[in-house]
Amino acid sequence: MPSIDGGRLLGDLERLREFGRYKTGVHRPTYSPVDVESRRWLAEKFREAGLESVIDGVGNVIGRNPGAERRLLVGSHSETQPYGGWLDGALGVVYGLELARAFAADPDCAGLGIEPAAWADEEGHYLPYLGSRSFTDAVPEEEIAAAKGRDDGVPLCDALAHAGFAELPRERLDPSRYVGYLEAHIEQGDTLDEARRRLGVVETIVGIDNYAVRLIGEQNHAGTTRMARRKDAGVAMVRLASAIHDRFPGLAGRRTVWTIGRMQIVPNAPSVIPGEAWMQVQFRDTDPAILARLERALYELAAACDRAGPCRCEVAVMSQSPPAPMDAGFQAIIEKAAERHAPGAHMRLPSAAGHDAAILSKKLRAAMLFVPSIGGISHHWSEDTKTEDIVLGAEVFAAAACEILRATQ
Amino acid sequence: MPSIDGGRLLGDLERLREFGRYKTGVHRPTYSPVDVESRRWLAEKFREAGLESVIDGVGNVIGRNPGAERRLLVGSHSETQPYGGWLDGALGVVYGLELARAFAADPDCAGLGIEPAAWADEEGHYLPYLGSRSFTDAVPEEEIAAAKGRDDGVPLCDALAHAGFAELPRERLDPSRYVGYLEAHIEQGDTLDEARRRLGVVETIVGIDNYAVRLIGEQNHAGTTRMARRKDAGVAMVRLASAIHDRFPGLAGRRTVWTIGRMQIVPNAPSVIPGEAWMQVQFRDTDPAILARLERALYELAAACDRAGPCRCEVAVMSQSPPAPMDAGFQAIIEKAAERHAPGAHMRLPSAAGHDAAILSKKLRAAMLFVPSIGGISHHWSEDTKTEDIVLGAEVFAAAACEILRATQ
Repeated sequence: MPSIDGGRLLGDLERLREFGRYKTGVHRPTYSPVDVESRRWLAEKFREAGLESVIDGVGNVIGRNPGAERRLLVGSHSETQPYGGWLDGALGVVYGLELARAFAADPDCAGLGIEPAAWADEEGHYLPYLGSRSFTDAVPEEEIAAAKGRDDGVPLCDALAHAGFAELPRERLDPSRYVGYLEAHIEQGDTLDEARRRLGVVETIVGIDNYAVRLIGEQNHAGTTRMARRKDAGVAMVRLASAIHDRFPGLAGRRTVWTIGRMQIVPNAPSVIPGEAWMQVQFRDTDPAILARLERALYELAAACDRAGPCRCEVAVMSQSPPAPMDAGFQAIIEKAAERHAPGAHMRLPSAAGHDAAILSKKLRAAMLFVPSIGGISHHWSEDTKTEDIVLGAEVFAAAACEILRATQ
Repeated sequence: MPSIDGGRLLGDLERLREFGRYKTGVHRPTYSPVDVESRRWLAEKFREAGLESVIDGVGNVIGRNPGAERRLLVGSHSETQPYGGWLDGALGVVYGLELARAFAADPDCAGLGIEPAAWADEEGHYLPYLGSRSFTDAVPEEEIAAAKGRDDGVPLCDALAHAGFAELPRERLDPSRYVGYLEAHIEQGDTLDEARRRLGVVETIVGIDNYAVRLIGEQNHAGTTRMARRKDAGVAMVRLASAIHDRFPGLAGRRTVWTIGRMQIVPNAPSVIPGEAWMQVQFRDTDPAILARLERALYELAAACDRAGPCRCEVAVMSQSPPAPMDAGFQAIIEKAAERHAPGAHMRLPSAAGHDAAILSKKLRAAMLFVPSIGGISHHWSEDTKTEDIVLGAEVFAAAACEILRATQ
């Protein structure tokens, strides 16, 4: 059985935290100088582990094991959210690296290869899941050409050129090369923490639908335009948003979530009646029927708002990623490994966050292992996981990877 | 009776429109290069009219008539809203200039002096009513020191230095110098236009109250944070805004207006639950009792929102300018002049927009004359007034000014 070196694993996670460290967390946006530096460091670590290491045209870092007979692709993303946590993404990347080293060192694993990957921009500073979508041919060239930094508006192409990646070829998945894909990640929610479990086997990654809702009114002077004459797009937006929050609870499942995370009124000036308003409505569930129900309700409420006037209302799909069930056989193997290493301290659960594994699962058998997030905190610099859970997770992950590579022989 | 030169008046309005012309309107933000240029041009025009001309430390342009025995201060603001109209402010400034010339040329007006003024930043690119407030000692120095450009964040002090005004002394009103203050302005609303009247005598300038309403929740991951655990400040804001729009109609008067012109959620990201939200609630009325009623309701609704949870809610006053009644004697004189020049084509009305006259009225007897805005449009480049109404307005304004100067002898 391949053996995890806990000290080496934690040392590499600590080293990776130094690229963009912020308090106990990390600020490492995709293609920022520290992100580029950290990708070069990862490529070097993959080489030290005996692999052929490549950085591709979107910044994916992949370690190749040409000598192996059977291979697992194992990875996660390596950039972070702004002022985010140190393990979100990094954990799964360093697990991949540690597994590659552990398998190479174990004579019993001869012929079994772990190929680690650090995907680019899962967090969507430019395009969500850009790295894994590029790798699986799931991102249209026009999308790349049009993409801009969500905070600074810098074109993605300029950012890639500046990072030194633009001239590199983009790696593409050869599905016949791999037995499957594994990803480890912090849970980000509080399900494991509240249930006092140390390991989670992901059943399904939630589907995530995003809609742009636009209200069109008439911009006018906030003093001289009488109430009866107004077409206030801000009023229309808050009334529609309230209606959504009223209606959705009756349609939702036990774990459905919905969020209006972005709102904007134009021109957003104290004495001007908003002529236009815009909000992004997102909902997530593992059940496609529930997603369809919420979508229908959203369109109905928007149509009712449009009919009632005085503002017009338009809804447009921004993105729809269907629920991604994980491979049942892989789940069973991970669960068995978890039970061997930590009897009773594991559970199955859905992933309420999106992950690169959802993208890879379209082309490979795929599965995910979760370790707990203390207090359920993530996307914040204070995010953390207990040291013993980090090490236990790696041991279970290695055991499961070994079993998967053997079982599929 | 002083005689208006319609061609000269319209020529000067057209010339002033060229400073920052945008389509048929004007883009002339306070202290922008074209605004500074236009103020120097106005100072020169005041000189050509035989006046001593000064630009002061905040950019006010004032023409002095040292030889007059009795004087009226006559003005408005000369900057515009972004991509705004050509007459908003400019009309009243050029009326002042034209009246100064007409009075100087009329032997019957010997000893009666018009002192024209172009106030700075009534539109609040840095500080609303800065010029007239500075002139009447109604702006604390700390407010000036702290002020920043509302769009670009440039400190007011830097903008004044860049404009070349910072080293100039700030002019202060000597109330004993003037019989009173007159201001002409476009109506900006549609009351005159709909009633097919060509002249409006302002009874009262509305009081305007502005409140900052802040909702404090808890920022969290939009996927992994279950609905029951959320403290979504965006949800709290839209529900409170809806409650305001539900409650206010029952408390409002016939002409009350209320507007939520600014809204913001933090961090405004698609997959993050807003941890904070902010909106600006404004209401206007000529009746202090109605303003007090709306204020009470706003605080009650905010307190109810705070009590109900899960977010906290805070309200703070941003500004409160009480209704400013215009001088009854001046109103009667303007009305009489209007009736003489255009029998039956005038009416009394409140001003639903704020004006420098509200500031000046705290120190001088003050009154306003309105000319119609075609279709009620303002704060937009397409704002306009019929040529014949512009000229008629100036004639009535001159006749009223003459009568006021004589009547108060």
